[in-house]
Amino acid sequence: MKTVQVGLVGFGTVGSGVVRLLTEHEDRFRRRLGEPLILKKVADIDLARPRLVSLAPELFTDKVQEILADPEIDVVIELIGGVTEAYDLIMAALARGKHVVTANKALLALHGNEIFQAASRAGVEVGFEASVCGGIPLILTLRQGLAANSIQEIFGILNGTSNYILSKMSMAGASFQQALVEAQAQGYAEADPTLDVEGIDAAHKLAILMALAYGTQINFGAIHVEGITRLEPIDIQLAREFGYQIKLLAITRDDGQRVEARVHPTMLPLDHIMASVQGAFNAVYITGDAVGPILLYGQGAGMMPTASAVAADLIDLAYNISHGVAGRVPPLGVNFADQSRRPIKPLEEIVTNYYFRFAAVDRPGVLSAISGILARFEISIAAVIQKGREIRGSVPVVMITHEAKESHVQQALAEIDRLAVITEKTIVIRIEDPNLDAAQI
Amino acid sequence: MKTVQVGLVGFGTVGSGVVRLLTEHEDRFRRRLGEPLILKKVADIDLARPRLVSLAPELFTDKVQEILADPEIDVVIELIGGVTEAYDLIMAALARGKHVVTANKALLALHGNEIFQAASRAGVEVGFEASVCGGIPLILTLRQGLAANSIQEIFGILNGTSNYILSKMSMAGASFQQALVEAQAQGYAEADPTLDVEGIDAAHKLAILMALAYGTQINFGAIHVEGITRLEPIDIQLAREFGYQIKLLAITRDDGQRVEARVHPTMLPLDHIMASVQGAFNAVYITGDAVGPILLYGQGAGMMPTASAVAADLIDLAYNISHGVAGRVPPLGVNFADQSRRPIKPLEEIVTNYYFRFAAVDRPGVLSAISGILARFEISIAAVIQKGREIRGSVPVVMITHEAKESHVQQALAEIDRLAVITEKTIVIRIEDPNLDAAQI
Repeated sequence: MKTVQVGLVGFGTVGSGVVRLLTEHEDRFRRRLGEPLILKKVADIDLARPRLVSLAPELFTDKVQEILADPEIDVVIELIGGVTEAYDLIMAALARGKHVVTANKALLALHGNEIFQAASRAGVEVGFEASVCGGIPLILTLRQGLAANSIQEIFGILNGTSNYILSKMSMAGASFQQALVEAQAQGYAEADPTLDVEGIDAAHKLAILMALAYGTQINFGAIHVEGITRLEPIDIQLAREFGYQIKLLAITRDDGQRVEARVHPTMLPLDHIMASVQGAFNAVYITGDAVGPILLYGQGAGMMPTASAVAADLIDLAYNISHGVAGRVPPLGVNFADQSRRPIKPLEEIVTNYYFRFAAVDRPGVLSAISGILARFEISIAAVIQKGREIRGSVPVVMITHEAKESHVQQALAEIDRLAVITEKTIVIRIEDPNLDAAQI
Repeated sequence: MKTVQVGLVGFGTVGSGVVRLLTEHEDRFRRRLGEPLILKKVADIDLARPRLVSLAPELFTDKVQEILADPEIDVVIELIGGVTEAYDLIMAALARGKHVVTANKALLALHGNEIFQAASRAGVEVGFEASVCGGIPLILTLRQGLAANSIQEIFGILNGTSNYILSKMSMAGASFQQALVEAQAQGYAEADPTLDVEGIDAAHKLAILMALAYGTQINFGAIHVEGITRLEPIDIQLAREFGYQIKLLAITRDDGQRVEARVHPTMLPLDHIMASVQGAFNAVYITGDAVGPILLYGQGAGMMPTASAVAADLIDLAYNISHGVAGRVPPLGVNFADQSRRPIKPLEEIVTNYYFRFAAVDRPGVLSAISGILARFEISIAAVIQKGREIRGSVPVVMITHEAKESHVQQALAEIDRLAVITEKTIVIRIEDPNLDAAQI
């Protein structure tokens, strides 16, 4: 075997994990490859910051060029994050014929097609197992493990920060703000949590998973995205009363012609295995036409879980480099020429069940006004609760619907929200419960 | 790419699934490989039996030799099951330089080392993803996805039949016999269920997983095996009262020096994600030192799930055949020369928590006699329940222990079972609950 040499750019948390595996556990690579993996150079703009692992000073540089220009370095690991600089770094590495391993989902969601094409032209590989759900071998599963399946549906809890916050809201009755502050204190949320709590990070990951699942190009822009910032503890409590848990789900579903692509708070039956995923954990529930439903679950972020995925990519790459078969498997499972086009079903055409929470003045005739409008839009009510608790001067009226069309729901709610008796914008949460319309609620 | 040709031996349930994928969904292989996978020949001793898929008659033979002797066939899929004939078939295929894909866990548990060596000498591969947990990509995960981890622990629900029976006993209060009859009626248990309900099938699979996890040879004989046939509904009910679910778990754990290897009914806390695995599903909970805990869950058997795994192996093999890199990754993840030796910790030295159900005559002094003997063997009681319900003339006395040594437990119970007031052999169920000794019960 050829001895493979690695340059790492970005010596932060995950970078420290990768350094730890490559330096403190080099025997693991040697046992699998017959040769060690050599960490030749580590670059970071900040040389002085204290780190969790020690590194021989002569390996450490603040000049990325020392890695890019080193002809002995076969693989560049990109762990700087962000989009612009990471893009430039990766394209420069590919142009010099270096393989790349990255954990950067935002970059791949936005520029993955171009990056994979560039890698293919250069005859090198881009490993990205670490970009979705940390150490859970999800890319490997979709690209290889389920390769003979037509993927029918994916439900993903893809963002640990949001799931931690929802778990806190659910278990401790905390408000979104309280749960966010605790998540920040625990290191599960960043100072600016926008990407996580607005669902954008989950959508980045869903874009990558959809390309793998359907053998298509990455199409981040087509995903409908809603975050969890508008959820209130009362919705989580009421969900529980109806037998549901609220999760920020990334959902894609293939109807044979078009595919759904959406990230939003979703009610799942309490006995669904995804409803029991708590804290900062990630989980992905995939249904293939041959394999049926499978679940993968684990820590989706963090120093060592993400380093585990980076290292798995390095080992796979080292096998391919040694055997001279880089690009043995196309990055998204199928060759570019064979990528299918799968139109995205617009959100307005989705048919699902809904939870509505109306903030209504407590006055006779309110229920009749609301239900009259719903009926006019063919939205049929499966259950209704009117609770005594007054919130900000109005009373919550909560409904669960039978299957309805999203466009009808949006039109009906626009009309309802204009009623004088409705004091706030209505809260809408979609429900994924195949049994709701089958059984009596 | 070279067009890879396949011969299938064993046209039963799983074989029919493989035929379906290869003939009705050939586009899936073509998209990934650029070339179709050709099903050249199918052999089965019974030509007449009705099957779930149709097959061109000219492809069908009752002579295995037609496959073995065909120089165009690159890969032999072994789906005949059993040990002796499957062994002969696989060794004959390897000797002729043919790759093999098999779902045969019993064969690999008993003869895997020899088979992998023979494949290596012949320069061909043996794919066995289908041998453990059907379509769940577990072999891929342990061999590649978690390649940079030291595996610390595996908990597996590896046998769908047993899990189906335990779920029925748990949810419907059925006896083992009633649940078994229902499992047989539903097609989840065979006429002779011994391999499944006695834990042997799970142990076969655990032997394979341990070799992958630790980079060792397969060592089936070292696994301690107990089945579920002695469990009674009362144990399942009492477990629930203590906050536990009983599962037939395959357990391995690395203490740094030696590894545990055991299959037996185990109590798991109700909030452990493995406790919620119901019906014929399989699940494997793996803890790696980098990745932390991950769970893989899905259907561990059946026509299409198992075919999904066979087909994934075929695709991976086709990549390697086309690129001339058969054996790119060693079958158990590390090369034979680098396989470590990991001594197995004898069952007697295991330290864990226990559930005891004593069948005692309802008479003063019984509890004192039992607890005196336990104390003498340093077995400390965490909780005790004495229920009024009389079973076969005696009253169940149930105890949960703090951590105790298996050898002490066995000695203490031998002494207790000789007491005149004890009317039946004591039921012992091991508990896996890291919080039991940390918290007050």
